[in-house]
Amino acid sequence: MPIVKVEMWPGRTQAQKAELARVITEAVVTIAHTTPESTIVIFKDVAKENWAVAGVLASQSP
Amino acid sequence: MPIVKVEMWPGRTQAQKAELARVITEAVVTIAHTTPESTIVIFKDVAKENWAVAGVLASQSP
Amino acid sequence: MPIVKVEMWPGRTQAQKAELARVITEAVVTIAHTTPESTIVIFKDVAKENWAVAGVLASQSP
Amino acid sequence: MPIVKVEMWPGRTQAQKAELARVITEAVVTIAHTTPESTIVIFKDVAKENWAVAGVLASQSP
Amino acid sequence: MPIVKVEMWPGRTQAQKAELARVITEAVVTIAHTTPESTIVIFKDVAKENWAVAGVLASQSP
Amino acid sequence: MPIVKVEMWPGRTQAQKAELARVITEAVVTIAHTTPESTIVIFKDVAKENWAVAGVLASQSP
Repeated sequence: MPIVKVEMWPGRTQAQKAELARVITEAVVTIAHTTPESTIVIFKDVAKENWAVAGVLASQSP
Repeated sequence: MPIVKVEMWPGRTQAQKAELARVITEAVVTIAHTTPESTIVIFKDVAKENWAVAGVLASQSP
Repeated sequence: MPIVKVEMWPGRTQAQKAELARVITEAVVTIAHTTPESTIVIFKDVAKENWAVAGVLASQSP
Repeated sequence: MPIVKVEMWPGRTQAQKAELARVITEAVVTIAHTTPESTIVIFKDVAKENWAVAGVLASQSP
Repeated sequence: MPIVKVEMWPGRTQAQKAELARVITEAVVTIAHTTPESTIVIFKDVAKENWAVAGVLASQSP
Repeated sequence: MPIVKVEMWPGRTQAQKAELARVITEAVVTIAHTTPESTIVIFKDVAKENWAVAGVLASQSP
């Protein structure tokens, strides 16, 4: 039943997301004792224009 | 005051989303006793490339 | 595959949530053409102390 | 450590988002006593086609 | 229409949350040109036991 | 910069969450090429009373 959401800046390839989904699912199944079939991993790309740290958009960060 | 978020794969038409928003709002108002005006429904399309089940991206699922 | 999240103030009974989950799932399945088994509905109670409209916490609203 | 998410209709400029990130971070740091470096602000544009109030999509609202 | 979510560790008082809601709403209204009535601010307390940075739960961080 | 949210039913121990945070962070750092310090993992316990599959609350599921 776990739902895992991963929010990152864009730029990761399909291969990287596929590998991340595989490894995170394996970790959740092994450590939290769930089944793979009930584990969902969702990726959300968030543009640097929409992500600020310390009050500064990452797209404008030096 | 309820906020309802619906995350689905892309592909639903505007007509389908409009109908879903109407029916879900009606259900929330009737069952949870709120007002239509205070009920918000938000749709988020999540690409199959960003959605994994059992550790496999839906875009790569057989 | 749809994931539906419903954020509301506390106070709904289990019977109300059960009915809401049933009706929302039925709507999603019928209108968005998914299967019941792949449809998840999650409720999140948000206390009035944590919910502000127009800059005023609902717990302090007249 | 605070994470602030702002969901709005599209149309805000980069300048508006930059200003919002700056002011919100300042408010969080000052009022909630955190550090700027640990404060993240994320913007999510939600199209009017995906946002319904009172059961009607904002894109179809009169 | 903006929805703002603020996730923080527990410990902020009602007065701090009320002040944050007021200031954030004012910022959103002024900078993003919305109305106060359509601006929602939601706070979510996340325990240190449920928040990890650099792979270490904040509750176990030195 | 990645933010990872893990929503699960309650019942995982602090040790399980600590191990999950460690392994997920390691995966994100290695596969997505980020730094540990900028990787946040947040756990959200969702009670079975608030989680429905196929229109049935998990707390009422046979």
